[in-house]
Amino acid sequence: MLIIGERINASRKSIADAISSRNAAFIRNEAKIQAAAGADYIDANAGTFVGEEAKHLQWVIETIQEAVDLPLSIDSPDPAVIKAMIPLVKKTPMINSITLEASRLEGILPLVAEHKAKVIGLCQSGDSIADTAEAKVKMAGQLVKKVEASGVPLDHLYIDPLVYPLATDDRSALATLDAIETIMKEFPGVHTTCGLTNVSYGLPNRKLVNRAFLVAAIGRGLDSVILDPTDKQLFGALKAALTIAGKDEFCMQYIAGFREGRLE
Amino acid sequence: MLIIGERINASRKSIADAISSRNAAFIRNEAKIQAAAGADYIDANAGTFVGEEAKHLQWVIETIQEAVDLPLSIDSPDPAVIKAMIPLVKKTPMINSITLEASRLEGILPLVAEHKAKVIGLCQSGDSIADTAEAKVKMAGQLVKKVEASGVPLDHLYIDPLVYPLATDDRSALATLDAIETIMKEFPGVHTTCGLTNVSYGLPNRKLVNRAFLVAAIGRGLDSVILDPTDKQLFGALKAALTIAGKDEFCMQYIAGFREGRLE
Repeated sequence: MLIIGERINASRKSIADAISSRNAAFIRNEAKIQAAAGADYIDANAGTFVGEEAKHLQWVIETIQEAVDLPLSIDSPDPAVIKAMIPLVKKTPMINSITLEASRLEGILPLVAEHKAKVIGLCQSGDSIADTAEAKVKMAGQLVKKVEASGVPLDHLYIDPLVYPLATDDRSALATLDAIETIMKEFPGVHTTCGLTNVSYGLPNRKLVNRAFLVAAIGRGLDSVILDPTDKQLFGALKAALTIAGKDEFCMQYIAGFREGRLE
Repeated sequence: MLIIGERINASRKSIADAISSRNAAFIRNEAKIQAAAGADYIDANAGTFVGEEAKHLQWVIETIQEAVDLPLSIDSPDPAVIKAMIPLVKKTPMINSITLEASRLEGILPLVAEHKAKVIGLCQSGDSIADTAEAKVKMAGQLVKKVEASGVPLDHLYIDPLVYPLATDDRSALATLDAIETIMKEFPGVHTTCGLTNVSYGLPNRKLVNRAFLVAAIGRGLDSVILDPTDKQLFGALKAALTIAGKDEFCMQYIAGFREGRLE
């Protein structure tokens, strides 16, 4: 289970404020706590700074790398921004993300191939979203074709089937779960990943729904996730879900998490 | 989702004490809190009183029925005990349980048929347990055949594939999850049910594992469960899991549970 730590995202006000004021200590701490909590990649996002994204993201990336040794997930839809960031990272990054939109795909995939990076592929095209399992799987197949054609190994592709709010479509989570299972079966070697927070948008006690979605998704084969690893209840659900899914030999990861006081 | 409230079980010391001392107020309260918490059936078990089970179970059943209007789950492996209890219940009961053991099957199934009861069928025979998905599904098929032959409609059969402790077999939960999915697909009309507590035996923070197992099982099609509905964290996981699984129209049950302060 590959964990992408999501906390350093400019859509969070505390992060946007820290970026604006160049509060490096704050960003470094955000990186450190996620590394300590088990993140494999640290996501770096300055997407709300329209027109100035590259300048701010550069500072974010440099600041994170002062604090931790982990590889980064360069989080931008803009091929130019990604191209400018890749030379700055010390370790082979993950690119977050491509879609089926031609400009984004054609701008980013060659960079992924050249730098042997991992890449998140969203089941989304320029003009439409995929809100059924069938549509998600179809787009996943299109992403697989494009990625294979670019020379990027399928093992570097993390398909995010996306999940939409249950509050507006009470079968949205099921569509994503079914898509995860089918993608993992139909495209051997490919990974699946997902963010969790969309699913609960508009519902009360959102974290409860996010946890249940994560557990159900791991039960269907999800092998990467974008989340806040410092959330002990969420991390506990993650570890328990992996144990339930038969992906924790002798339950050792679960027991270790408990001993470290990390499961709630 | 059919919920069988498990609290009134003589394997719990407080219940055994209440039975021994004929503390009717205690048993009535145990029934009432489960009814208020959303139980569909109240399980009644006096199984630890070897040789005196019938006498004690009769008192338990009469006491529960003084307190609540819900149907009961008559919980005994002994056909003679079940036969003696059926005349006492005011509503059509569930019988908990049959296995593939011939004496139990032949003793209990005719009673189930005669009284149009529901019945829990455990994936277990006299001399062996089923610890793989394949073995569980095979035994489920044998139960289905026996139940059909007895004239009990399949809609009255709740197959419990059983789950064994992860601490001794780190793929035990996965075997049960796979069995649930296959049973629900291969035997249309049949239900699946399961107790949750075995899975976490020997692990720390057991309730976390129980909740994850419940969420994953609902994601695979489980449509009944044996649990303590007064456990708000477990009940919250149940409601969230049903919403995630597309079984909660407009998320109304989830939102209602939240408004009632029942989700933690």
